[in-house]
Amino acid sequence: MVKATPLPRNETGIATALGILKQQFGDRLQTGQAIREQHGHTTTWIENQPPDAVVFPRSTEEVAEIVKVCAAHRVPVIPFGVGTSLEGHVNAPAGGISVDMGQMNQILAVYPEDLNCVVQPGVTREQLNTHLRDQGLFFPIDPGANATIGGMTATRASGTNAVRYGTMKDNVIALEAVMADGQVIKTAQRAKKSSAGYDLTRLLVGSEGTLGLITRITLRLQGIPEAMSSARCSFETVDAACQAVMATIQYGVPVARMELLDTASVSAVNAYSKLDLPEAPLLLLEFHGSEASVAEQSATFGDIAEDFGGTGFEWTTNAEDRTRLWKARHDYYWATMQISPGKTGIATDVCVPISRLAECVARNNEMIAEQGLVGLVVGHVGDGNFHTTILVDTEDAGEIARAEEFVGRLNDLAISMDGTCTGEHGIGQGKRPYLTRELGAATQYMAAIKAALDPEGILNPGKILPD
Amino acid sequence: MVKATPLPRNETGIATALGILKQQFGDRLQTGQAIREQHGHTTTWIENQPPDAVVFPRSTEEVAEIVKVCAAHRVPVIPFGVGTSLEGHVNAPAGGISVDMGQMNQILAVYPEDLNCVVQPGVTREQLNTHLRDQGLFFPIDPGANATIGGMTATRASGTNAVRYGTMKDNVIALEAVMADGQVIKTAQRAKKSSAGYDLTRLLVGSEGTLGLITRITLRLQGIPEAMSSARCSFETVDAACQAVMATIQYGVPVARMELLDTASVSAVNAYSKLDLPEAPLLLLEFHGSEASVAEQSATFGDIAEDFGGTGFEWTTNAEDRTRLWKARHDYYWATMQISPGKTGIATDVCVPISRLAECVARNNEMIAEQGLVGLVVGHVGDGNFHTTILVDTEDAGEIARAEEFVGRLNDLAISMDGTCTGEHGIGQGKRPYLTRELGAATQYMAAIKAALDPEGILNPGKILPD
Repeated sequence: MVKATPLPRNETGIATALGILKQQFGDRLQTGQAIREQHGHTTTWIENQPPDAVVFPRSTEEVAEIVKVCAAHRVPVIPFGVGTSLEGHVNAPAGGISVDMGQMNQILAVYPEDLNCVVQPGVTREQLNTHLRDQGLFFPIDPGANATIGGMTATRASGTNAVRYGTMKDNVIALEAVMADGQVIKTAQRAKKSSAGYDLTRLLVGSEGTLGLITRITLRLQGIPEAMSSARCSFETVDAACQAVMATIQYGVPVARMELLDTASVSAVNAYSKLDLPEAPLLLLEFHGSEASVAEQSATFGDIAEDFGGTGFEWTTNAEDRTRLWKARHDYYWATMQISPGKTGIATDVCVPISRLAECVARNNEMIAEQGLVGLVVGHVGDGNFHTTILVDTEDAGEIARAEEFVGRLNDLAISMDGTCTGEHGIGQGKRPYLTRELGAATQYMAAIKAALDPEGILNPGKILPD
Repeated sequence: MVKATPLPRNETGIATALGILKQQFGDRLQTGQAIREQHGHTTTWIENQPPDAVVFPRSTEEVAEIVKVCAAHRVPVIPFGVGTSLEGHVNAPAGGISVDMGQMNQILAVYPEDLNCVVQPGVTREQLNTHLRDQGLFFPIDPGANATIGGMTATRASGTNAVRYGTMKDNVIALEAVMADGQVIKTAQRAKKSSAGYDLTRLLVGSEGTLGLITRITLRLQGIPEAMSSARCSFETVDAACQAVMATIQYGVPVARMELLDTASVSAVNAYSKLDLPEAPLLLLEFHGSEASVAEQSATFGDIAEDFGGTGFEWTTNAEDRTRLWKARHDYYWATMQISPGKTGIATDVCVPISRLAECVARNNEMIAEQGLVGLVVGHVGDGNFHTTILVDTEDAGEIARAEEFVGRLNDLAISMDGTCTGEHGIGQGKRPYLTRELGAATQYMAAIKAALDPEGILNPGKILPD
């Protein structure tokens, strides 16, 4: 595992706060080792740093009580959704209290006429979409995991259909949050837009629990499209695939999803899912609209793909065939797990201007080889965002070191291309060194904001900002 | 005019800073009364508070020099685009230096493959679109006035096609800014999305020059659609028009523009432009897409409009006919000016959840009548945002007082409907009292951010935050 640096612990404060909270929350405060480790647990290679306790509030008022007790005794507070973040976001390097939002999982209101809804932070993406389906509505952001809306908001999540529907920053209308002093605020009203004051909504989106604990989220919704079509097409090179993507977007085709699998990824899914896709870069697409519109979008993409040497173009609106076409993507995670049994797939992400994407992926693959590693690429190619999964033996210090070296070089490469060290996974603990390389002096003002809003530094310490 | 409260002036500091800047900038620092008044000038009814001087920098480095001098001597700095803001944003209640960005008007780079560009703050919207046209690109945000991109960014502008393309918050990728200490930062890279740290981009968008001076803007662009169609339809009531709008959006029609004129507005344009529109609420629409898609969108809207009693539905893709259909909107401003010669049209804006829009407009019209005023409504109805123009004699203290009373009641009404006191005009000086009514304790954290980033309070003092 990658070592995570511990921070100084306030033992007295932690003990006092734990005592008070135990009295208030009874069985809803847990201190068993397994549950603590599960709440420090990260789906990454960073070592586990469990909190001292996990508390399960049921209301905004209870969250505010927890924060007030922790503020009074200078004890870290770490909000927790379901723990699917990838960069050590929920670790507790200075100990403290993990606030598990799982019992705050009510969908408080749905406003079909306004295409928005209000939810508690523990509502999961799939729970919300199941609830909305009967009303012909859906919430489009899909980061893959069945994450909580609170966690997705706090990490500025996006995913496969951000190319059409944007990221969490574009789909959160307003927030209720408990600030570091225990005060509850709302950042905006439910109106679709506003120019009233500083955009605290967007400041909290992506703040990874370091500026406030999100207790209520007002989300934009979409009508379920009348029709969806799926398509796939192979290309000789990643560059040709990227050229087709750029031309499609420039042409104004409102693609809903557009995923790239590199050759290594296609080989992996061929092996795992018994497919016979050409072992070449593959684009998978999805179009949303009316029946006529998705047919036109699919055909337009087909024409553009042909111009860039695309082969094996297929498209369909039939649900069963759509699943078949996208099988390579649905099975991707499991396919990567099968390449090197016993090894763990470590996912990292960068995002570059799309004109640099092919070059970035090519250099990525060279750098993987240079470190003697095995890795695969899958990309949200319409956004210039891609994930590299490296397969590592997390007990092999040498391989870990080479993988870390690779991740560092990839981040620096993306930054050198006017890109970012993280398109959607966030900074957490893992990417802190790169934030300053990417944004330089801007991090000083981020630190000033953190100090102004959380002067005691109790909210999710050791995340985002460099030391 | 509405009185604007002066703030304490730092006479010694202002005199010293002026002396230093005069040496550095020569003729590019102006102190004549006319130019000072023009730069304090607001297109509103708030009285003019001119700055002590106007300086015309040509580079980020010069902006940084100006801010450093003003920081050293605690002198207010007020950024200025072309002065089309509506709520006293460029007034100088404590005096100081107006920084006119007019000579920083270079389009620095256009990246057609990435659908983005980098511009200086003094570039105007029309200048940018003229430059982009040959490349088949456009920048969609259209607040009406030919504002600068810097000003539009600083005020989180939106306008007629925000319903499809979003507001400035959705279309700014990254900023370069000079902070209150004179340091230059970049808030993000040119990648389409990022989850790297706090969203300083969105914090500066809409900060009205109170947190930093924007010196460079990276913008998202759109491909010019293959086809556009325009449509119009009359309704018996504002409520019926709003019902049609809601149904259209829920149905997933990606309307590009959707404007509502109330009966009084239609009467005004009939009189001014010699039109014979039915004197009833009118919807004007625009659709972007392929030829087939805009035809389908127009027809779908027509069907929906019929369900809600719409009459006189017409649509066309022909450019000349499109202009004819939208004439009522294009002539709107001039038409309102003709209603009561000698009176000034004062525009205010609110935004509510669209399900409350019809009720809000109805109550708005009652409140205008209760104050014995004449007023008209035009709305970006797809966003729940509308403007009321009240015609006042700005020398008539009684009428001004009644108009102020009306604006206050309208703001309170919008807030009571979970809406905002400003959908797109911003807070400036005019709406400061309403910010706290709308967002309560959140304004304390806005003030904390302001204090952290501008501890001496030199950046556009007296704006946004309540005293």
